[in-house]
Amino acid sequence: MNELNTRVLLASRPEGWPIEANFRIEEVPLVEPRDGELLVRSHWLSLDPYMRGRMNDAKSYAPKVEIGDVMVGGAVGEVLASKNGAYKVGDFVVGSFGWQTHAVSNGAGVMKVDPKRVPLSAYLGVVGMPGVTAYVGLLDIGAPREGETVVVSAASGAVGSVVGQIAKMRGCRAVGIAGGSAKCDYVTRELGFDACVDYKAGRLLEDLRAATPKGVDVYFENVGGEVLDAVLTRLNPFARIPLCGLVSQYNETKPYPVRNLGALLVNRVKLEGFIVSDRLPRWPEALGALAGWVAEGKLHYRESKAEGIRQAPRAFLGMLRGENFGKQLVKLA
Amino acid sequence: MNELNTRVLLASRPEGWPIEANFRIEEVPLVEPRDGELLVRSHWLSLDPYMRGRMNDAKSYAPKVEIGDVMVGGAVGEVLASKNGAYKVGDFVVGSFGWQTHAVSNGAGVMKVDPKRVPLSAYLGVVGMPGVTAYVGLLDIGAPREGETVVVSAASGAVGSVVGQIAKMRGCRAVGIAGGSAKCDYVTRELGFDACVDYKAGRLLEDLRAATPKGVDVYFENVGGEVLDAVLTRLNPFARIPLCGLVSQYNETKPYPVRNLGALLVNRVKLEGFIVSDRLPRWPEALGALAGWVAEGKLHYRESKAEGIRQAPRAFLGMLRGENFGKQLVKLA
Repeated sequence: MNELNTRVLLASRPEGWPIEANFRIEEVPLVEPRDGELLVRSHWLSLDPYMRGRMNDAKSYAPKVEIGDVMVGGAVGEVLASKNGAYKVGDFVVGSFGWQTHAVSNGAGVMKVDPKRVPLSAYLGVVGMPGVTAYVGLLDIGAPREGETVVVSAASGAVGSVVGQIAKMRGCRAVGIAGGSAKCDYVTRELGFDACVDYKAGRLLEDLRAATPKGVDVYFENVGGEVLDAVLTRLNPFARIPLCGLVSQYNETKPYPVRNLGALLVNRVKLEGFIVSDRLPRWPEALGALAGWVAEGKLHYRESKAEGIRQAPRAFLGMLRGENFGKQLVKLA
Repeated sequence: MNELNTRVLLASRPEGWPIEANFRIEEVPLVEPRDGELLVRSHWLSLDPYMRGRMNDAKSYAPKVEIGDVMVGGAVGEVLASKNGAYKVGDFVVGSFGWQTHAVSNGAGVMKVDPKRVPLSAYLGVVGMPGVTAYVGLLDIGAPREGETVVVSAASGAVGSVVGQIAKMRGCRAVGIAGGSAKCDYVTRELGFDACVDYKAGRLLEDLRAATPKGVDVYFENVGGEVLDAVLTRLNPFARIPLCGLVSQYNETKPYPVRNLGALLVNRVKLEGFIVSDRLPRWPEALGALAGWVAEGKLHYRESKAEGIRQAPRAFLGMLRGENFGKQLVKLA
C-alpha cells in the first residue's frame, strides 16, 4: 500500500465549453478498505458525454459533481484488497469508480466481469453502459420492425455503433449520421450500416433525404440541434424517437432553436427521453445478448485510448468535440 | 327538394394566415340520395384548428382539401331522406358533412345521436371529437396519477376545458394556460381548475412557476411555440406530454424556435403526438363517460356560436386568432 492514488477533481464549473483548467489532478495516499469495502485498481476509465452535465450547477437526472470532488465515471479494474465477502483479490470488476487510478467501494453497483469472455475494456463500451443504452433504447423505445429505416446520430460512437448493428440484425435499413468521411466509411464498411450521412459535408438535408428514400421510422437521437431538426423532416407516420443524448447542446449557452417539431404532431411520433440507469431490470438480458454477439464476432466496435489518468481531461474535451473515434477510454494500468 | 345547399369551398391556399378570400361560397341544388345514401340537413357545423392544416398543399395526417372542394368538417344534423337501411328520416346524426347546409353521405363514419340526452351541439364538442381527444390524450398518454399536476394550454377551448375537468376528477392539480383574464377567470371559476396562467399578461415564466409549485407531471399541448418552451422549464422527471395541437404555429411561415428540449432528456419525458381518429376503439368508452358526466352536471362547457354558413370563414379565422370562447360552432338550422 505504498502506491498513490492519482485522481482528477472538478476544480471549477465551465461556462459553455469546458477547459482543462476546470479540472485539477492530485495524488493522495491509498486508503485501506474498511469492513464491507473493497479497493480496486482501475485498468480502464470510461469517458462519456453525460459527464458534461454533471459538471453543471443545475438540476439533472443525477447529482452534480461538487467542486473539489472526484469526477464521476465508470471504470473496470482488479480488486487489490477486499473486506467485502462478495469480492476477492484478483476479481475483475466494473463500477462507478471515478476518474482515478484507485477506488474504495462498498460494492454498490459493482459487478464482476470475465476478461476471458470479452476484453476488459469492452465492459465499459459495447458490453457495458453504452451497449445497454443502445440495446434498451432501440428495442424498448424504438421497437424497430423488419424493413423499417433506423437512423442514429453519433453513429461511430459507443452507443450509435451498437444501435445500427442491432438494427441490421433486426432486418432494418440502418443509416448513420457522423462527422467526417473517415467515420462514415467506418460506419458503412466496417459496421455494415446501409448508409452514413456526413453532417460536416454541408448537405445535411439533401444527403439525409437520399439516405432515407422510404423516410425514417426510428431515430435514435444522441446529438440534437441541427441534426435533429433535419431528421424531423424525414419522419414517417408513427415514428419513434429514443432520446438518448443531445451532445451538440451540452456546451452551448444558447441552445439550438428547433423549428420542425410540427412533424411530431403530423406524424403522431412517440419521443421518449431515457437514461439507462432507470432501466436496471433490462441490464442482464442486454448484457447477455451483447456479450454473445461480441464473442460470436457479430458486433464490432472501436476504441479511442488515451494513456494515463493525467490525459483524462484532454481526452474528455476531445470527445465533446467529436475527436474520438469509437468508444473513448483512458488506459490506467 | 326545392331547397338549395349553401356550401363553402376552398378557393385558394393561404400563405401564413388565411383570409376570407381563401374561401368561396356557392349555392347548388340539393342532390337526391342514391341507393345506400342519406341526405342530411346540418344543424351545427364544428370549426376546429386542424382544418387549417387541410388547407395546405402539404403532407399531413389527413388528405388536404383540393381547390374547389367543400371544406372538411364535422357537423350534426337531421336525416331528410334516406336510402340507407341504417338511417331513417328524422334521425339525428353526426358525421363529416363538411362546411355546407346539406350533405349526401354513404353512412361511413356517421353515428346516430340522441338530442334528448345532451344538446345536439354537444356532439361536436364535449361529447364529440374534441371531448374524446381530451379523454384519450389525457388518460392514455398523459396517464395522470392522483396528486400530480396537469397543465393544459388553450384551456378554455373545446379540448382544453375537458382535459382540466377530467384531471380534477382524477385528483390532480389542474392548471390552465389561456389568453386573457376573461378566459382565465372562466377556467378557474366555472370549470374549477386550480389555477390559470394568462399567457398574454407578459409574465409567462413567472406566472407558470407560481401556478406549478410542484412542477408539471402532465402537459397536454394544444398550442406549441413560446408556451411549450415555457412549460418545458417546469417539467418533473418522467413527465408525459400528449401532443394534441400546435395552433400557435399553424399560420406561421417560420415556426417558433424551441430551445428547451434538453428538458425532455434530463427528465426522461415521454412526448407523443396523437390524432384521435387513429384511436377509434377508444371512442365508445370515451363518449359514454363524457355524456354521463355532462348529464350529471359534472362536466361544463361553453360554446361560441356563429350564425349561418356564410359566417363560417370569418368565425374560423377568429378561432385561429383565439377570439372564440369555448367550442366554436356555426348554427346552420
